[in-house]
Amino acid sequence: MSEQSEYSEGDLRNTGMALKHDREWDYELDRIIDAVEERDAEKVGLQFPEGLKRRGPQVADDLRELLPDDVTILLSGQPCYGACDLDTYLMKRTDVFVHFGHSPMKNTDKVIYVPLFSNVDVFPIMEQSLEELDVGDVGLVTTAQHMNHFEKMRGWLEERGFDVHTRRGDDRLTHEGQVLGCNYASADIDADQVLYVGGGKFHPLGLAMEHPDKTVVIADPVNNVVTVADTEKFLKQRYGAVHRAMDAEKWGVIFCTKIGQGRWDVAQDILDGNENAYLITMDEVTPDRLRNFDMDAFVNTGCPRITTDDGPRFHKPMLTPGEYEIAVGNEPLDSLEFDTFHGTW
Amino acid sequence: MSEQSEYSEGDLRNTGMALKHDREWDYELDRIIDAVEERDAEKVGLQFPEGLKRRGPQVADDLRELLPDDVTILLSGQPCYGACDLDTYLMKRTDVFVHFGHSPMKNTDKVIYVPLFSNVDVFPIMEQSLEELDVGDVGLVTTAQHMNHFEKMRGWLEERGFDVHTRRGDDRLTHEGQVLGCNYASADIDADQVLYVGGGKFHPLGLAMEHPDKTVVIADPVNNVVTVADTEKFLKQRYGAVHRAMDAEKWGVIFCTKIGQGRWDVAQDILDGNENAYLITMDEVTPDRLRNFDMDAFVNTGCPRITTDDGPRFHKPMLTPGEYEIAVGNEPLDSLEFDTFHGTW
Repeated sequence: MSEQSEYSEGDLRNTGMALKHDREWDYELDRIIDAVEERDAEKVGLQFPEGLKRRGPQVADDLRELLPDDVTILLSGQPCYGACDLDTYLMKRTDVFVHFGHSPMKNTDKVIYVPLFSNVDVFPIMEQSLEELDVGDVGLVTTAQHMNHFEKMRGWLEERGFDVHTRRGDDRLTHEGQVLGCNYASADIDADQVLYVGGGKFHPLGLAMEHPDKTVVIADPVNNVVTVADTEKFLKQRYGAVHRAMDAEKWGVIFCTKIGQGRWDVAQDILDGNENAYLITMDEVTPDRLRNFDMDAFVNTGCPRITTDDGPRFHKPMLTPGEYEIAVGNEPLDSLEFDTFHGTW
Repeated sequence: MSEQSEYSEGDLRNTGMALKHDREWDYELDRIIDAVEERDAEKVGLQFPEGLKRRGPQVADDLRELLPDDVTILLSGQPCYGACDLDTYLMKRTDVFVHFGHSPMKNTDKVIYVPLFSNVDVFPIMEQSLEELDVGDVGLVTTAQHMNHFEKMRGWLEERGFDVHTRRGDDRLTHEGQVLGCNYASADIDADQVLYVGGGKFHPLGLAMEHPDKTVVIADPVNNVVTVADTEKFLKQRYGAVHRAMDAEKWGVIFCTKIGQGRWDVAQDILDGNENAYLITMDEVTPDRLRNFDMDAFVNTGCPRITTDDGPRFHKPMLTPGEYEIAVGNEPLDSLEFDTFHGTW
């Protein structure tokens, strides 16, 4: 147990990231309590990502013990997979609103972001990753969970003779060296190899797709494994979806209403160019919701993870906007790229 | 084909109401087009109930042919089961917003309600229902789909010697004699028998639960069958859920954020009386969303249909607020009632 042992433990078992290491989180209750007192708050909203939702009641308990009796804690039951997934209903209707597990996509005093940094030791797996790296120029990127160790990682590499290139990326990213599942601008650096330190498969895959000229080495401290990103299987799946959609007549164009996922111009452009395209708006994009629409294929202008990771679960081909342009013949097959998001909300 | 044959056909196959008769709907495109012209609208939002969503693109086509090119039609992809299920996101972001298939829960010029009346002939099945009715006082109720025939139904019964009692019910209801899945105030009439004309099982069940002293005769013109409502199986299922929840320590109290389903006082009362109760807010209440919360039982202050119809699909017992009071010992077992909603939004 760490020095934060009075707080609840947490894990990410339901996020799709299997854990080998136990983790503990710092819920930063002090910051929340300060905000409640400062604003004389009556309602406090808490939003957790899917894998941490089961810890919500314990955090609520801890807060209730520390706060006056007349403060009501509300737990968001909306699905949450990223900082773009703000529960704006709860945000607008609570005096203090806390979003756990992600870094801010935009500076706002409406939301308290508690990042929940991982306490996993990243250096043993970085040691292993050296076998895949050539000493010299290297890019370094990681996810929000490991940002607290970023400067140490950089120093660690520099001590071993690397010239470490990092970038803050664009407005969508909070930190130097941070990547999101939809934004890899922090890897736009002058090096042929990039070291990604973090769990999950989606981020390094997007990274390798977005930077096909670079070798992407994955040091995964969560599953304790080093790999080199391979986009071949991903590309096969995507080309499969594109081919299946080539015969489509009726297209459903999905506009996601989540605050950080709206790309109206992209959706409108598709509509303007295709009289058999229909605009469908929704927050959660799920197979159930699309099954009721009589479409031959869908193009999702919202989260690219839904399109590519969940794609096979939909009853009809689900493409990114770029893939749509290929399927309808506006762009050549080899223009297939990873779908990324820029800008905030 | 009827005189509305230029419009698309529709059915309710996915609503849980199996159809024996084909139906056609009047989408009242003229009203929509008038509103677009009047407001010089650029964006038109259309919301259909689940079973009619697949007709949405056809209605969009019809409208696109009749409207200027620069008008964008947006189809709501949010699940929709009733007038309480307004897609407020789309409503706020479109110049004209049309909600199909339900009657207004509240007068507002923000929404154009197109009721989609059924063209099923109700009188053959009413003829059959006479076998279950005693000539004399009878209440008459129906659903939004058949409201267009309500006065004819009344006259038909009166011609056969009945003294027909009807009521508008309360503010939640638009029409004399209308019932909702959560409101049966229109059956508070001075008669020992009530004739319900309509499809579905949920409405007459709620009706019989809400009025246990009355015989509820169901004339279902959709499935072409007459039955007398029997609450026994329903009660067994509900008492089963209540019993399973009696050992629960941790309770998830669901506050539904849909515009017509919020019962804040009910949720707050439960929280105030139980320190092991946690408030969870969400719009769609689904088994997936609740699985991530580590609770022993749930009490749903939102739509009663979710609690009772979908109840068995949840991994933990799901109770109505009244059933919760029984499970925690605040009320006797025999106080079990159907959960109804009053007031608008």
